[in-house]
Amino acid sequence: MRIALAQLNAVVGDIAGNEQRIRKQLAEARRRAAQLVLFPELAVTGYPPEDLLLKEHFLADARAAVERIAADAVGIVAVIGFPERAEDVFNAAAVLADGAVAATYRKVHLPNYGVFDEVRYFQSGPGGAVLEIDGTTVGLTICEDVWQPGPPLSDEALAGATVIANISASPYHAGKGVERERMLAQRARDNLAAMVFCGLVGGQDELLFDGHSVVVDHEGVVIARAPQFAEALLVVDVDPLAAGAARLRDTRQRPAARDARAGVTHLGSFAARAGAGTATDVGGPVAPLLDPDAEVYAGLVLGTRDYVEKNGFERVVVGLSGGIDSTLVALVAADALGAGRLTCVTMPSPYSSPGTLGDARALAANLGAELLEIAIEPMMRAYDTALAEPFAGREPDLTEENLQARIRGNLLMALSNKFGWLVLTTGNKSELGVGYSTLYGDSAGGFAVIKDVPKQMVYRLVAVRSARDDHSPVPASIVERAPSAELRPDQRDDDSLPAYAVLDAILEGYVEHDLGRDQLVARGLPAEDVERVIRLVDLAEYKRRQNPPGIKITQRAFGRDRRVPITNRYRG
Amino acid sequence: MRIALAQLNAVVGDIAGNEQRIRKQLAEARRRAAQLVLFPELAVTGYPPEDLLLKEHFLADARAAVERIAADAVGIVAVIGFPERAEDVFNAAAVLADGAVAATYRKVHLPNYGVFDEVRYFQSGPGGAVLEIDGTTVGLTICEDVWQPGPPLSDEALAGATVIANISASPYHAGKGVERERMLAQRARDNLAAMVFCGLVGGQDELLFDGHSVVVDHEGVVIARAPQFAEALLVVDVDPLAAGAARLRDTRQRPAARDARAGVTHLGSFAARAGAGTATDVGGPVAPLLDPDAEVYAGLVLGTRDYVEKNGFERVVVGLSGGIDSTLVALVAADALGAGRLTCVTMPSPYSSPGTLGDARALAANLGAELLEIAIEPMMRAYDTALAEPFAGREPDLTEENLQARIRGNLLMALSNKFGWLVLTTGNKSELGVGYSTLYGDSAGGFAVIKDVPKQMVYRLVAVRSARDDHSPVPASIVERAPSAELRPDQRDDDSLPAYAVLDAILEGYVEHDLGRDQLVARGLPAEDVERVIRLVDLAEYKRRQNPPGIKITQRAFGRDRRVPITNRYRG
Repeated sequence: MRIALAQLNAVVGDIAGNEQRIRKQLAEARRRAAQLVLFPELAVTGYPPEDLLLKEHFLADARAAVERIAADAVGIVAVIGFPERAEDVFNAAAVLADGAVAATYRKVHLPNYGVFDEVRYFQSGPGGAVLEIDGTTVGLTICEDVWQPGPPLSDEALAGATVIANISASPYHAGKGVERERMLAQRARDNLAAMVFCGLVGGQDELLFDGHSVVVDHEGVVIARAPQFAEALLVVDVDPLAAGAARLRDTRQRPAARDARAGVTHLGSFAARAGAGTATDVGGPVAPLLDPDAEVYAGLVLGTRDYVEKNGFERVVVGLSGGIDSTLVALVAADALGAGRLTCVTMPSPYSSPGTLGDARALAANLGAELLEIAIEPMMRAYDTALAEPFAGREPDLTEENLQARIRGNLLMALSNKFGWLVLTTGNKSELGVGYSTLYGDSAGGFAVIKDVPKQMVYRLVAVRSARDDHSPVPASIVERAPSAELRPDQRDDDSLPAYAVLDAILEGYVEHDLGRDQLVARGLPAEDVERVIRLVDLAEYKRRQNPPGIKITQRAFGRDRRVPITNRYRG
Repeated sequence: MRIALAQLNAVVGDIAGNEQRIRKQLAEARRRAAQLVLFPELAVTGYPPEDLLLKEHFLADARAAVERIAADAVGIVAVIGFPERAEDVFNAAAVLADGAVAATYRKVHLPNYGVFDEVRYFQSGPGGAVLEIDGTTVGLTICEDVWQPGPPLSDEALAGATVIANISASPYHAGKGVERERMLAQRARDNLAAMVFCGLVGGQDELLFDGHSVVVDHEGVVIARAPQFAEALLVVDVDPLAAGAARLRDTRQRPAARDARAGVTHLGSFAARAGAGTATDVGGPVAPLLDPDAEVYAGLVLGTRDYVEKNGFERVVVGLSGGIDSTLVALVAADALGAGRLTCVTMPSPYSSPGTLGDARALAANLGAELLEIAIEPMMRAYDTALAEPFAGREPDLTEENLQARIRGNLLMALSNKFGWLVLTTGNKSELGVGYSTLYGDSAGGFAVIKDVPKQMVYRLVAVRSARDDHSPVPASIVERAPSAELRPDQRDDDSLPAYAVLDAILEGYVEHDLGRDQLVARGLPAEDVERVIRLVDLAEYKRRQNPPGIKITQRAFGRDRRVPITNRYRG
């Protein structure tokens, strides 16, 4: 049986555009003689459409697009994710066949944890559903439906499905793709069914979808894989008889089968002879997997490109300090958009060292990006004069440091306002975690490319990118210099923060795993650092709440993934 | 039967503090001879604790506090909301009696719409529960459990409960208290049971809880009411026999009763003779209801006070422009904290009129608040010079207007940094709706007092507050002057926006009721304005996402209440 997986980069709200993307891939799947073509979860609306789902006219527009697409489904069965408005709203898969909407499947398991809010919008479907295509029984599932080992997946297999199709929008974090592939392999073995996973690809605000569509046979062997972080149409030949034959030998599930079948809806039998008889071998192209850090880097590139393109920006601007964070952001931006769409701005103060200024210039030149230089001292002096009276008798402190950062933020935003450029901010997760950033200063901008990247990973990602070229665009001194905000003479980050190795370990435990003070100390982290970092993380919540969106790449990102109160007296 | 309703202002995360607040009210309820005392939903942790609920140690700390409080529950039954960690996590009510935790009730209906995310945290309880106190059957419910007319409420009544206790944390919007009281009256009549509603009071980030605890008898008559927006211990005598007697005459529900009883847990019988025999009359104090605009004003005052106090700020600072918005914020701040804790700052530019500057001075003087004056022209000149080269050949535009707003934001933040003051921002819902504000400029600050107040309501609230004193602190010219941002000569808001009456009507329909373009036009709103405003609202989402939190007072606030994507190509 020939199946096409359309790993689509659907745009949220762009129903007309998504319809065109779907029709194009549907035509290509027909041309390549597929009998079944899959499109991701909510492919018609993009994922997640959030409160657009509360608009009746939005739901009606999505339905109308599905009806139009159906006309193209001739000689092929198409399964397409859309929000179905019926007696309630369902996260559904439309089955298109013979030029019409033949049936729908409704997602059973609605995730409402982490970044997910599906119970806010959807009613659960009643259970599994299967359809027959040219004699092969195919079970339908949507995303979360296969993350639980039981029904509807197991019911569908027990009802005879030897191929389980899963259409998905599975948000990325580092390593998620491999984890997902292993889970699918286990499901295949447990149910003696081929698993066909069609994933969404692309960036959507804070979420990134890695694509990584994959087909595993009933023994858990990967027989086809689409690339990570790119659109693709993956065409694969699956042997539907192999799983059935295996079930004759392996009858563990038989006792459960009769009950299970009762809960499964039969959606009908369809002929889609386009590809019948053409498949001799099984399998399809198997894209190689990226190494862990290269995977994250590629994700940041796609997430940045999609935020910029989907929001209609022509150009981005980055403040280059000569430090490692803004270096990584500039590298990602140049890879995402081309250096010709990147303006770098260096804004030296009297505290900036010649070394960082020179490094910023060298980096921009090596990348081939435009560089502007604007000294901030005149604004510093104007503010100092204006504030001399209210500040009389007070020593300089963080206030004056913050003003430098805010002057730089203002200059970048002025360029943004004047020329329509998007400002990319450069704060990393370690700094934003402990509030080592200036609100309306270095955090001012439209998109926070590396806000979920811990400082130690920042270095690794720069190294991965540097190693790609024979001559790295990154001056060695950027990597070697001790991190400093350069907001006062001879400042170093580790004057005020624990070493980044310690800081990142505490943050990972506290933020990603909800560990408390005692558990962190029991892991060998210094009690004093643990207590201080926890306190700083809690206190900085008000700042993070006003940060621009950025790409989630860890198991728990600040933002929609970690929802904590600002007003909060709990310690630890 | 004597019941005490402890309308508590619990602080999120302050388990130790909440324990003390609870014990104090519990002692007072015993002193006043109550047999039953109710505390709000999640009173031990505050509401909503959000992702604190994902920490095992947080749940253990909450449980330990309940165990300690139980020791005080002697001669009285106490019902206290807490998160119960068992085989899963439940939004629960602990029943404390005879010095111990005697039983728990688990919330059945978990709201997961609007501002609510309870399915993210909690498992549903199995159904209704009743207990007997000195021979009277009392049904237990938590918040949402009574917003649905059926079980568990109806089951408990059918199982014999003549008093239904509801402990709640019910987020405020204008008019919600009256709506809730009417709903409770209908539930009382439908079930022939007295409804005893104990509500949380206080501000928590964007949410405000209005208190407004109320007791209605089985005929729907309000027999006691606590004040809105203030802590209170409301003590009321309820006649538990009257509802039972009414059921002898009105037997509509009898056919359903047998099945219902099966679904209800009997938590036990308790003696709490403290108040037995002392009640001769029924009822208790009935606080008057505030008029609609006075209600919102009082809500803003409490919401502001709680954000400031719960986050430990000594003083707040407001930029006074001489316009109506900053006037309202200064009035609210002075009422919330006392004018002695308010610093006003007026920051004139060359475009400021003498009228607005004089009005700002007069308002601060009338309030008795400190006033600082800082002219922004030197900073404007410094930025113009610094940007002369990149801006060469370009006309002045919004960029230079935004810079003025950002200079003011920087000055307020510098005062905040230097002195530890909280900056209150002054944007209203109409402006934030259409993006008529400067990111990092007038929107820079820690708390956005009136971010959910439409412009027309801003005027009404100033009028309500002005009418309270014989001599209003508000100069008449502030109210009479046409609104202007004063960022260029002779600027008026209605140069770039529809009249506020039209704007507010469109925003209400689009934002609060999810109406589309066609529906709004069908309501008689000008098509051109409708299309423009919808577009502006969608485009400004990225700005709102970076705004500080502010108090929800409408049916749908921007923020956690209205969750829309930034990247969104849907129009309408």
